[in-house]
Amino acid sequence: MKITVVGAGNVGATCADVLAYKEIGNQVVLLDIKEGIAEGKALDIWQKAPIDLYDTRTIGVTNDYSRTADSDVVVITSGLPRKPGMSRDDLISTNANIVRSVTENVVKHSPNAIIIVVSNPLDVMTYCAHITSKMPRTRVMGMAGILDTARYRAFLADEINCSPKDIQAMLMGGHGDTMVPLPRYTTVGGIPVTELVAKDKLDAIVNRTINGGGELVKLMGTSAWYAPGSAAAQMVEAIVKDQRRIFPVCLKLEGEYDIDNCYLGAPVVLGKNGIEKIIELKLNDEEKALLEVSRQKVTEVMQVLDNIVEKS
Amino acid sequence: MKITVVGAGNVGATCADVLAYKEIGNQVVLLDIKEGIAEGKALDIWQKAPIDLYDTRTIGVTNDYSRTADSDVVVITSGLPRKPGMSRDDLISTNANIVRSVTENVVKHSPNAIIIVVSNPLDVMTYCAHITSKMPRTRVMGMAGILDTARYRAFLADEINCSPKDIQAMLMGGHGDTMVPLPRYTTVGGIPVTELVAKDKLDAIVNRTINGGGELVKLMGTSAWYAPGSAAAQMVEAIVKDQRRIFPVCLKLEGEYDIDNCYLGAPVVLGKNGIEKIIELKLNDEEKALLEVSRQKVTEVMQVLDNIVEKS
Amino acid sequence: MKITVVGAGNVGATCADVLAYKEIGNQVVLLDIKEGIAEGKALDIWQKAPIDLYDTRTIGVTNDYSRTADSDVVVITSGLPRKPGMSRDDLISTNANIVRSVTENVVKHSPNAIIIVVSNPLDVMTYCAHITSKMPRTRVMGMAGILDTARYRAFLADEINCSPKDIQAMLMGGHGDTMVPLPRYTTVGGIPVTELVAKDKLDAIVNRTINGGGELVKLMGTSAWYAPGSAAAQMVEAIVKDQRRIFPVCLKLEGEYDIDNCYLGAPVVLGKNGIEKIIELKLNDEEKALLEVSRQKVTEVMQVLDNIVEKS
Amino acid sequence: MKITVVGAGNVGATCADVLAYKEIGNQVVLLDIKEGIAEGKALDIWQKAPIDLYDTRTIGVTNDYSRTADSDVVVITSGLPRKPGMSRDDLISTNANIVRSVTENVVKHSPNAIIIVVSNPLDVMTYCAHITSKMPRTRVMGMAGILDTARYRAFLADEINCSPKDIQAMLMGGHGDTMVPLPRYTTVGGIPVTELVAKDKLDAIVNRTINGGGELVKLMGTSAWYAPGSAAAQMVEAIVKDQRRIFPVCLKLEGEYDIDNCYLGAPVVLGKNGIEKIIELKLNDEEKALLEVSRQKVTEVMQVLDNIVEKS
Repeated sequence: MKITVVGAGNVGATCADVLAYKEIGNQVVLLDIKEGIAEGKALDIWQKAPIDLYDTRTIGVTNDYSRTADSDVVVITSGLPRKPGMSRDDLISTNANIVRSVTENVVKHSPNAIIIVVSNPLDVMTYCAHITSKMPRTRVMGMAGILDTARYRAFLADEINCSPKDIQAMLMGGHGDTMVPLPRYTTVGGIPVTELVAKDKLDAIVNRTINGGGELVKLMGTSAWYAPGSAAAQMVEAIVKDQRRIFPVCLKLEGEYDIDNCYLGAPVVLGKNGIEKIIELKLNDEEKALLEVSRQKVTEVMQVLDNIVEKS
Repeated sequence: MKITVVGAGNVGATCADVLAYKEIGNQVVLLDIKEGIAEGKALDIWQKAPIDLYDTRTIGVTNDYSRTADSDVVVITSGLPRKPGMSRDDLISTNANIVRSVTENVVKHSPNAIIIVVSNPLDVMTYCAHITSKMPRTRVMGMAGILDTARYRAFLADEINCSPKDIQAMLMGGHGDTMVPLPRYTTVGGIPVTELVAKDKLDAIVNRTINGGGELVKLMGTSAWYAPGSAAAQMVEAIVKDQRRIFPVCLKLEGEYDIDNCYLGAPVVLGKNGIEKIIELKLNDEEKALLEVSRQKVTEVMQVLDNIVEKS
Repeated sequence: MKITVVGAGNVGATCADVLAYKEIGNQVVLLDIKEGIAEGKALDIWQKAPIDLYDTRTIGVTNDYSRTADSDVVVITSGLPRKPGMSRDDLISTNANIVRSVTENVVKHSPNAIIIVVSNPLDVMTYCAHITSKMPRTRVMGMAGILDTARYRAFLADEINCSPKDIQAMLMGGHGDTMVPLPRYTTVGGIPVTELVAKDKLDAIVNRTINGGGELVKLMGTSAWYAPGSAAAQMVEAIVKDQRRIFPVCLKLEGEYDIDNCYLGAPVVLGKNGIEKIIELKLNDEEKALLEVSRQKVTEVMQVLDNIVEKS
Repeated sequence: MKITVVGAGNVGATCADVLAYKEIGNQVVLLDIKEGIAEGKALDIWQKAPIDLYDTRTIGVTNDYSRTADSDVVVITSGLPRKPGMSRDDLISTNANIVRSVTENVVKHSPNAIIIVVSNPLDVMTYCAHITSKMPRTRVMGMAGILDTARYRAFLADEINCSPKDIQAMLMGGHGDTMVPLPRYTTVGGIPVTELVAKDKLDAIVNRTINGGGELVKLMGTSAWYAPGSAAAQMVEAIVKDQRRIFPVCLKLEGEYDIDNCYLGAPVVLGKNGIEKIIELKLNDEEKALLEVSRQKVTEVMQVLDNIVEKS
């Protein structure tokens, strides 16, 4: 199996490192537009192989998509962070141009790849990559839910003072502040979290999760990468090993949850064909209302992209 | 950390192998009464170290408990299987003698060890080891629930056609046919199993789980060992690494669940002090009734042991 | 990737368990002629998946080779142990019949598989499988050298009191008493073992290695399985993941080492096509002489097989 | 076990991440002088725990050494990179002040810790930490050799086209251009590398290794961290798990190799007491000459430090 990671920033390089370390695929190609950066990081990761004993070859290339040919899975992490003074619409416009160009190159050289989008704003970039790729919606998806649930589960492990291994959770909706938390779908060793954590504490943890990305930016002055990069690698692993993992993944809804033509996080079965199945949870009215809010917000940013495309 | 496994039968040797493979502890002592068997299996496991690259030394000894001195955790797997024509009470009597003698030797050489009982019948052998040890109930416990939930989760993964990694479950009560299944406490990626599996299928899976041990005996002509040995090793790991895992574990209830002086499976937090906390689930009436049945059956076999002790 | 293990005895089942645990391949089929035994062990291994968190499905079948169809790698462990009063030639005859029949069935359903033979006597059974398969010698090989070197390395780790991870060794020749030890090709963290272990001790360790299988039979009353099963799994891993590992492997020599038409252990590069390359060591005269003795002994047992085939 | 990593730059954070991922120790404290950076990275690493399933708690602190109290192992990665226009002596002076201050704080709160120095220039910073700590030389050592050998082994794996798992090597001397390559102590599956790689190619690989750090700086504009961080973590692991690994480690020689009072890389056995044993290789004249050159160069930079201390 051959995997390509586009964008050798912190998230992309971490993703490549985790893929190599876990020997997911024989070959990982790390591609960046900036000369040297992908080559250097890939070489550093390969020099770790004799220490941590893995065989996956990591190869860094500058913008040469022919080296990514026939990849089985491609992770797209490219995009700029929002700079001070930059409007949301400008950010969308800039990153959509990047993601569109990357997707075209990816599809040209790996027409059968499954594509995982990590670029931000996540929901609309998944939309952008999907329509550019002209591939079925089961093969172009976004990573956000695994990261959001990971943060939520880490906070819960702290609160309960138990192993993070024992906490499972499902979330829906958009990434960040359009996330739809689902405490009814959170369990600790199978035990509903509501039996173990008081409502006010749970609410506080949900809020902290919604702002989880921002908390880290505030501390470090830059976006996080350990959990995001590893979350993307986990989606690759589920596909490469045909694990049929159940994850929240951003995809185009086409009628599920009575929502049409909107890119939202929803639980799916992830396997060798990408999204093998979409799971429809039996949401209650409150949860449905939250999902509707999320749908509206994501639809709004999708329209920003539509307008940009029309104008151009 | 030093770990001792008493009994080098299939379950004990598998447990030692898993502990070594995962490098849980520096040293694993495997002890058996039968000359050569523990030495041979420990040597075979050690000869695997250069292949699978672990450093935990496995040492086999014949009945020499001085070699187990100062163990941090001891797993007791000793005991005979039920032979044709043997009554349940005879089995209890025979194995209680074995477990009592083993426990005395263990405690003599490792007074600060945490003891995990795997011998059958599990609940009453945990009782036997506990009273023999004169140690607090938080440091003498039985392994059954992890195995029962593992079987249940494997069956569910087959039924749902998803990864076993994504299934969490909690069970209570005795081992085998006195098990208390808790479908309300079973989730798939955080999703209640009842949203994904129809009631009749779930009932069938619960029944298959209750008879899970017997199914394997029927196929192989002997008891299983891969899952049981690994389940015991997982309890050791949680203790040695202070993981605070949430597992169903057999322990003496002293008022929890309104049950006193009965050895039953219940969810606990497992860490460096053994049972760090007992979790009280908010059972509904039906679940409480099932637990009461389990309590009665286990109390009955505990009394068999009491009668044997009194007579002797 | 699909892997089949033929023979659900201790070695075969251990091999299947290690393959599952390490997620080498999506599916492992365990096949045995005895009803129930493969089904039981495969089920027990699958029930461990929720504990040790792997996704490889293990499936047990009784003699139904259609279930092994399109395997990428097949491990053959079938064969009887030598019984008291049984001549060597009788053992060869009996096991050759088994291995021939197994190989025919394997090749019929998986014509593109790579075959790893573990049955004993190893060298002649590899010969038997190879000629039966009518496949190139690079795709039918025997496992012995990894096991022999693992034992040797474990003994050295004890003697030096260091990690087994740091000992590398290469051996050649037949399995067991026809093994060709190569102390010149043994290093500890890159340091020649002769700088660290005195000659008499090294000789003793070599001798113990040559009789390593017998030592374990004496202790346990049966052949070892932990290291042998794991050694076979490691060869499968190298092939499935195209790791290009350098291992001593039993194969047909066709002029290498000036030896023709003899099945002997030699260092190879193991990758996705099976034996990717045969490495010719620069042996000194003493080593060449030992190899010649090994060649003669193996040729002798190969002739036993030839005679049986001619007669039948 | 509690481990502290001082310095939350790329190398320190990578080291903490690897320690957590491998569950080496229960707790990893990451400390930095810059507010927020250690907190952010530690939180990001902890948020990865629910994805990659580990229990080691990572905690970030700003300059508060009381939180590192009673660490078993401390890794010091602090120090500035050499800036344009900065003389070597200025760099030594600046970093020695940092390492001295860090070491004082570390020893104050963890008087029984084993200290691993990663700061540059490595040999002289190990010297600085050792004399500041007033601890035995077996408990204060520098990490360089594992990184240098890892790079060398990665290059060799490329050249031979084989698994990096199968290459072992020992180097000696200082870090970088004072490194003493030892091709006689390099093997591939036990086979001397000189049988597999032509002399001119081997010389080129040795040269590339000597300049390995610079190659990466050139590509990335900054020093490497994946391999360096993981190399430091591997030393921690050997100590925490008492693995008795054989590694090249920078330590004070006191007569070994006929060298006194110089901090140089030499092969040691690394275990729970730190350096358990120093291995004296039987070097030939050429190798001895190279080591003497290395000794002279390191002694020279040690004197730079001595002069700074005297002046102050």
